[in-house]
Amino acid sequence: MSTVPLIHYEDASAEVREVFDAIKTARNVPDVNNFWKALANHPATLKRTWESLSEVMGPGSLDSLTKEMLYIAVSIVNNCDYCIHSHTASAFAKGMTPAQYGELLAVIAMAHETNALSTAFKVPIDPQFLVGEGIGDRGLGIGD
Amino acid sequence: MSTVPLIHYEDASAEVREVFDAIKTARNVPDVNNFWKALANHPATLKRTWESLSEVMGPGSLDSLTKEMLYIAVSIVNNCDYCIHSHTASAFAKGMTPAQYGELLAVIAMAHETNALSTAFKVPIDPQFLVGEGIGDRGLGIGD
Amino acid sequence: MSTVPLIHYEDASAEVREVFDAIKTARNVPDVNNFWKALANHPATLKRTWESLSEVMGPGSLDSLTKEMLYIAVSIVNNCDYCIHSHTASAFAKGMTPAQYGELLAVIAMAHETNALSTAFKVPIDPQFLVGEGIGDRGLGIGD
Amino acid sequence: MSTVPLIHYEDASAEVREVFDAIKTARNVPDVNNFWKALANHPATLKRTWESLSEVMGPGSLDSLTKEMLYIAVSIVNNCDYCIHSHTASAFAKGMTPAQYGELLAVIAMAHETNALSTAFKVPIDPQFLVGEGIGDRGLGIGD
Amino acid sequence: MSTVPLIHYEDASAEVREVFDAIKTARNVPDVNNFWKALANHPATLKRTWESLSEVMGPGSLDSLTKEMLYIAVSIVNNCDYCIHSHTASAFAKGMTPAQYGELLAVIAMAHETNALSTAFKVPIDPQFLVGEGIGDRGLGIGD
Amino acid sequence: MSTVPLIHYEDASAEVREVFDAIKTARNVPDVNNFWKALANHPATLKRTWESLSEVMGPGSLDSLTKEMLYIAVSIVNNCDYCIHSHTASAFAKGMTPAQYGELLAVIAMAHETNALSTAFKVPIDPQFLVGEGIGDRGLGIGD
Repeated sequence: MSTVPLIHYEDASAEVREVFDAIKTARNVPDVNNFWKALANHPATLKRTWESLSEVMGPGSLDSLTKEMLYIAVSIVNNCDYCIHSHTASAFAKGMTPAQYGELLAVIAMAHETNALSTAFKVPIDPQFLVGEGIGDRGLGIGD
Repeated sequence: MSTVPLIHYEDASAEVREVFDAIKTARNVPDVNNFWKALANHPATLKRTWESLSEVMGPGSLDSLTKEMLYIAVSIVNNCDYCIHSHTASAFAKGMTPAQYGELLAVIAMAHETNALSTAFKVPIDPQFLVGEGIGDRGLGIGD
Repeated sequence: MSTVPLIHYEDASAEVREVFDAIKTARNVPDVNNFWKALANHPATLKRTWESLSEVMGPGSLDSLTKEMLYIAVSIVNNCDYCIHSHTASAFAKGMTPAQYGELLAVIAMAHETNALSTAFKVPIDPQFLVGEGIGDRGLGIGD
Repeated sequence: MSTVPLIHYEDASAEVREVFDAIKTARNVPDVNNFWKALANHPATLKRTWESLSEVMGPGSLDSLTKEMLYIAVSIVNNCDYCIHSHTASAFAKGMTPAQYGELLAVIAMAHETNALSTAFKVPIDPQFLVGEGIGDRGLGIGD
Repeated sequence: MSTVPLIHYEDASAEVREVFDAIKTARNVPDVNNFWKALANHPATLKRTWESLSEVMGPGSLDSLTKEMLYIAVSIVNNCDYCIHSHTASAFAKGMTPAQYGELLAVIAMAHETNALSTAFKVPIDPQFLVGEGIGDRGLGIGD
Repeated sequence: MSTVPLIHYEDASAEVREVFDAIKTARNVPDVNNFWKALANHPATLKRTWESLSEVMGPGSLDSLTKEMLYIAVSIVNNCDYCIHSHTASAFAKGMTPAQYGELLAVIAMAHETNALSTAFKVPIDPQFLVGEGIGDRGLGIGD
């Protein structure tokens, strides 16, 4: 049960309806998800979050499915129930195959395992990972 | 400073050298990273981790760079210093562009933000995300 | 479903009842919350936790509502279901307005986002944040 | 060492300088912090983050110091080195007293402790915390 | 509701049945837990996870109950619902007493509290904790 | 660099010295660790934390080394640098063998991996883990 009432379109203010309309148009869906209905309790947060999300998840140099898979990865480590379900559904809707989903989870689980080991041992960072400080001229080190 | 001494090739047991050799061959590098030199204190963990990592990060339905970016995402949420540096270096070595890196971090940061909001509001999961329970016949819900 | 039975007043030992009575008196409530009924399985933990909580959440230089909001912030990052619900209810009971709640969550979400970016980039700490080492004579740096 | 070079004002593009100027003006400081110099590698993220942060941390129903303390709380749980240092410095600059800082950390530490206990016991949520679903008419339950 | 269908023995492939049979034999149980039925959607992950788990949780220098308690500790910090329930049940099945369970949770909760304080204060590491770098000749420092 | 100055014995108030003396006596050491010198900035937190820690880590139904290993496990998941170093040193001082340390980290890493998988798949909890609700009569389920 959410800590705030969900605001439905018919009960929403003009300010909220404007964002809901933008979401519905952008996604070509008849109604917004519960996430937005909860955020509608705070119109400024609703508006800012939608605008940021549109910008971040919009077209760019990473394809849409890759972005969804990254979203799933973060949501799993943060253990966000709603986000895991919504972004897993979204990734499947965008064409993620069962094989890709299986590999996605295997990578996430493996990363957890080596993260824990690196943190536990306090492994010193290899100098080649730091050479060049930055994008332009970094070395060719390979992780782990 | 690590909690264990780093085991260098010349001081390693035959059991450890065998894994080090496998890593060096697979990656075509003259020496293994510090991560493996720390793990070498526990040969069974060294061997199991290398075998699992090879399998998980090997060829499959997700390309190698996507896997590295997923690794970065998990490592950032877990705040693993070594892992962030090593996998960021590795992703650049595999061809990640500065633009892709920028988008990668933007998605990760955005996911953190909506994870926090969903968790804070305890947003109830939309039924369409649960329809079909599983891969075969899931609905076409779109996350968030 | 909890991993231990909830201990109700009528079934409690004298040792547990003493703490329950202290909680009921301090809060002027007819019964203690489930949290305490679970802790009652381990009377030493029950007693220590109540005493520490009373001390920490009692009168001081931060007002009671600010302390509740801090509790909500920590509980969201730790994703503690029970704690999010109980402390959100408590904050509203102490006068938190919907506008304050909205801003509280916006700050928490924003902090998640910049935390992720700072961690991802491994931003070096500005010297002015470290000047003075300690409270007495620290500089006037402004965060982020 | 950061994963990207820090972009200094004199090397920045017009797009980046515009944001840097906005930060310098808003804060009345001669230069921006390293956080912004790292973000400047990705101008879109720099701009969006500054605009969001300005909006979220700006005047509202929570005072500026309370917002900084909430930021510290989240940053500690997320274990963000840079953020802990920068926002602790910022809170002191905004007038946080040593006594308030001590209480702040005591609340954060206490919340961690009861978060762990609630999560470990899987304490069922008391019905009074859920009554009213939402802000308007919620009950008067007191957390923990 | 899981994100994938649970694969039951009668619907499983030969590859999956082989792992299920190994689990049933090793544990002397009539059926595998839901965890394995979910993993069965990705036979490679199922196989690798079972083999790793068998190796890690098998006989060694730490007794079986201690390993379960460590598993509970990690699962609580990661807030994994399924894992907390399954490993708590498993530890009780292996003879954990209520008194031990109470102490286990008290240690976990206390560790959370001092973790938060150490992280918040950014306490510098005492040199004696670092002397000797490694197992052979480390000093006799006592934690906290 | 810590966010507060470390308070040394010679500069400490009588209230702080009393706690420092108690720690030195209990541990038979010539000086307290930096953790306590940082906490000394807030005498109430210093006193409460020492008293709680003494109680929790004192003699009971779990032996002292097991408690240290649990402390290490929590500290790794919370990624607390100071705590990992101090409690790893402490565990070695209490007799942890390299083999035990290796198994400890292997269990922690493995738990991370299955935690991630369980959370990702949202595996439904097997009824036998919930039977009996509580210590007295719980079933004999085996975790994972």
